[in-house]
Amino acid sequence: MEQKARVLIDCEDQKGLVYKISKVFFEKNLNIENNREFVDSDSGKFFMRSVVSGQFCSKKLREELIEVLPQHANLQVIEPNRKKIVIFVTKEAHALGDILIRYDDGELDVDIEAVISNHDTLRELVRRFDIPFIHIPTEGLSREEHEEVVVEQLDKLEFDYIVLAKYMRILNSSFVAKFPKKIINIHHSFLPAFVGANPYKQAYERGVKIIGATAHFVTDELDEGPIIAQDTINVNHRFDWKDMQNAGKDVEKVVLSRALKIVLNDRIFVNGNKTIVF
Amino acid sequence: MEQKARVLIDCEDQKGLVYKISKVFFEKNLNIENNREFVDSDSGKFFMRSVVSGQFCSKKLREELIEVLPQHANLQVIEPNRKKIVIFVTKEAHALGDILIRYDDGELDVDIEAVISNHDTLRELVRRFDIPFIHIPTEGLSREEHEEVVVEQLDKLEFDYIVLAKYMRILNSSFVAKFPKKIINIHHSFLPAFVGANPYKQAYERGVKIIGATAHFVTDELDEGPIIAQDTINVNHRFDWKDMQNAGKDVEKVVLSRALKIVLNDRIFVNGNKTIVF
Amino acid sequence: MEQKARVLIDCEDQKGLVYKISKVFFEKNLNIENNREFVDSDSGKFFMRSVVSGQFCSKKLREELIEVLPQHANLQVIEPNRKKIVIFVTKEAHALGDILIRYDDGELDVDIEAVISNHDTLRELVRRFDIPFIHIPTEGLSREEHEEVVVEQLDKLEFDYIVLAKYMRILNSSFVAKFPKKIINIHHSFLPAFVGANPYKQAYERGVKIIGATAHFVTDELDEGPIIAQDTINVNHRFDWKDMQNAGKDVEKVVLSRALKIVLNDRIFVNGNKTIVF
Amino acid sequence: MEQKARVLIDCEDQKGLVYKISKVFFEKNLNIENNREFVDSDSGKFFMRSVVSGQFCSKKLREELIEVLPQHANLQVIEPNRKKIVIFVTKEAHALGDILIRYDDGELDVDIEAVISNHDTLRELVRRFDIPFIHIPTEGLSREEHEEVVVEQLDKLEFDYIVLAKYMRILNSSFVAKFPKKIINIHHSFLPAFVGANPYKQAYERGVKIIGATAHFVTDELDEGPIIAQDTINVNHRFDWKDMQNAGKDVEKVVLSRALKIVLNDRIFVNGNKTIVF
Repeated sequence: MEQKARVLIDCEDQKGLVYKISKVFFEKNLNIENNREFVDSDSGKFFMRSVVSGQFCSKKLREELIEVLPQHANLQVIEPNRKKIVIFVTKEAHALGDILIRYDDGELDVDIEAVISNHDTLRELVRRFDIPFIHIPTEGLSREEHEEVVVEQLDKLEFDYIVLAKYMRILNSSFVAKFPKKIINIHHSFLPAFVGANPYKQAYERGVKIIGATAHFVTDELDEGPIIAQDTINVNHRFDWKDMQNAGKDVEKVVLSRALKIVLNDRIFVNGNKTIVF
Repeated sequence: MEQKARVLIDCEDQKGLVYKISKVFFEKNLNIENNREFVDSDSGKFFMRSVVSGQFCSKKLREELIEVLPQHANLQVIEPNRKKIVIFVTKEAHALGDILIRYDDGELDVDIEAVISNHDTLRELVRRFDIPFIHIPTEGLSREEHEEVVVEQLDKLEFDYIVLAKYMRILNSSFVAKFPKKIINIHHSFLPAFVGANPYKQAYERGVKIIGATAHFVTDELDEGPIIAQDTINVNHRFDWKDMQNAGKDVEKVVLSRALKIVLNDRIFVNGNKTIVF
Repeated sequence: MEQKARVLIDCEDQKGLVYKISKVFFEKNLNIENNREFVDSDSGKFFMRSVVSGQFCSKKLREELIEVLPQHANLQVIEPNRKKIVIFVTKEAHALGDILIRYDDGELDVDIEAVISNHDTLRELVRRFDIPFIHIPTEGLSREEHEEVVVEQLDKLEFDYIVLAKYMRILNSSFVAKFPKKIINIHHSFLPAFVGANPYKQAYERGVKIIGATAHFVTDELDEGPIIAQDTINVNHRFDWKDMQNAGKDVEKVVLSRALKIVLNDRIFVNGNKTIVF
Repeated sequence: MEQKARVLIDCEDQKGLVYKISKVFFEKNLNIENNREFVDSDSGKFFMRSVVSGQFCSKKLREELIEVLPQHANLQVIEPNRKKIVIFVTKEAHALGDILIRYDDGELDVDIEAVISNHDTLRELVRRFDIPFIHIPTEGLSREEHEEVVVEQLDKLEFDYIVLAKYMRILNSSFVAKFPKKIINIHHSFLPAFVGANPYKQAYERGVKIIGATAHFVTDELDEGPIIAQDTINVNHRFDWKDMQNAGKDVEKVVLSRALKIVLNDRIFVNGNKTIVF
């Protein structure tokens, strides 16, 4: 029976890696449907993503590949699957709404396990798509306590990624540490410009002629995680910061969905604080 | 005899300004060839740029306009003229070269009085276009002393604007204070990201997916002056910082020339730390 | 009581028009919140859009303006209102879904009276937003007969614009003639490239490096109506036509919504086969 | 002694090609500095570009590769070299000027053998850079006769590519046939929109909101050759066709130089009427 796998390799660079890896594929009689490699000369690391098809046992393929790879290589053999996400939101509908439409349309190969929010605003929108909406208010709770409640809810769910679709709260280190490379955020500026709160106001006050959005993995440092996707649009003096905010919504939602597709299709490597997107 | 003038007004907003101004134009039998207004509701300021044609005396037009404008209004009545610039460079040819070609082609309505450089690298290129090249080495001179020599040279020249076409030295406050709103710089990043030295290296290290360039007026604070024009291009993990630098050259030169045209055509107002570009 | 109106003027150009119009505003003690003018030197036509506020009677304002305008001037004095639209779709969800989310979020100042489709595919999505879905199958009907049924349905509705959100049928002249400047279409190419059916396939076969989308008013000639908004994105040899189609969805929906906002805010003039967008 | 080569392979797709090719590299102890592959599933063709370094004999490397490739494979083993070009121009300076500046700056790894023009307009600009300028007037000559004179001149020169930097004449089939995949043109529209003469006028008349430029290989059919690079910029109703033409210059020159770099670095395959750019 014909199968397919995404093979992701991330290891120390060495002469002959492409040869050794493609030899394994060839000897197992696999088709290479897609193949991308990259050597980061700074870190001396080799990255490769192959989509292979044929008749094979994933476990065996893994073993044979590990044998030809350098020590400490990271190897993933992923059978294309429907991933599961949990979405965090606050009050803004556009980024969530965009994901919901794509999900409903089958454009995003994903199951949305739940939408979690610190506000009740978006309950109705989520209900329209028959997805559980979990409202976890912050009133009377410290940041730590609130996150504990969130984690309790997450513990009941199965998911691959947490998507912050305009979740307007900063996550604690302890929370972030639980989900390394598993939290995707959309920040409403072309980072590293305008880190932190209200970037459109900052942008307006600086008088910039372009605004943008950045999707990135969340790390311990605010808005400093590895960037997955970015885009910008032009603005001018006629835009006050509310206009910038409105115009920015379209970039935010498109950039977040672009990032989501990259992640869901296993097309990304994290390389230090950078990413490689194939 | 048919004349033309650019009328630039910048004053406190008031009801009836458009009416009062256009009344002056109408009663003097002027054609309005182009008209743009903007009210900045934050500062309560009114900005207007009109291109008028007809038979008129600029001085009289000025007087009649002043009469209908609020106190402290800034009014310029400019007869379109060929402006004069001095270009400062260091070693990179692309931004200077782009200006030289546009100048040679008559695309930029400008006279280049001289090119001043702290290095001798670009002498030959400037010579090709029969423009004076003034090499002012920095060896053995403090920043202040070097700028004194530069000012000595500038004193011999007549010019409207100084264009920093990749001049890789920071100018002292005292120098900048001499030429308010008269120095145009191209910074090789989408400001406010990557202020200061080697923005491409900073961009590379941050792992951004877009890079850009910003043309701005130089003020006392490094890379903080009012932005005239900005643009960005996409990069990816295959770009090391040298590749970013090379790819960035095209944005830098195009953005600088775009800014230069805006300034030379009197299409810009400085509004605090922002600009209005008509 | 403070009121607001959008004043749209479209007439033969004449000396003094800005003066005469702003005089009316001034004498009625109106604030000009926003003002844009344009003279098309080709056609010798003058276009002006002002947003005015104050205490006034729209009818009287109209009369006084007409008095100062040239003969045959088109004048609209529009009190900002919530417009009504009917959306036509076929099977694709992305453009419709984008409008629904914006509508649900209050971003689009509009009432959606109904969604009409030649297929039943999107019934469920429309139902989620509690909007009437009218399925008008084409089976057994000629184009004329089908449109007659559509018109019957439209006759029961009140609406300002028809939005073709990927309606994959060509409309007859007789239908189009009923709704001049009232039908907005999104075409999935940067017109005038790739008119007609399957532009992504055409684009793929031509080997282009950019694809795009165009929102335009529908006229009698296929894909030849006045363009409201356009945008493009980059593609490369890795995109087959299905990939182009998928990538194109984001441009289509963003361009259509941008056009819709322009139209709903009365920010557009049709000038022959061109548009002026203020 | 360390050498470098660009290996370009273009053949029927087969299982094991990457393995067989990388085996040759591995056994010759070569480093793969850069590697890109693509399979065009439409045509069933495999494309690969590798940059290899090490100690090797190009002829032998060629032979060993040919042995493992399918019949009729196209194989190029290119030692990076400085290519030679001849530039054709008419009267416009911007595209030529941009190439001259990049050439003078060492940014383009190229020798410009001559500039050939049907007008004398750009003689002075070319002279500034000490490059032969050959004026071949068309007066009194049929298209065929003019091209004969051009070919006579070309016969005296050695060159790899002809670059049409706004050469405003259509080339005959017989001329084009002499230089297959060797003539690069910049067309001033986003092809396939606005084929032929005066695309800016066509764009203006159609009322488009974007304009663009296309660099392509010249084939027998006007503006129909394989596209190398394209880009677009936004315009609006304020642009008459002269403004579009001026704004378009920046896109034209940047797109042409981008295409030129792709070609000079052997980063392109022609695949039917499409291109693959690595």
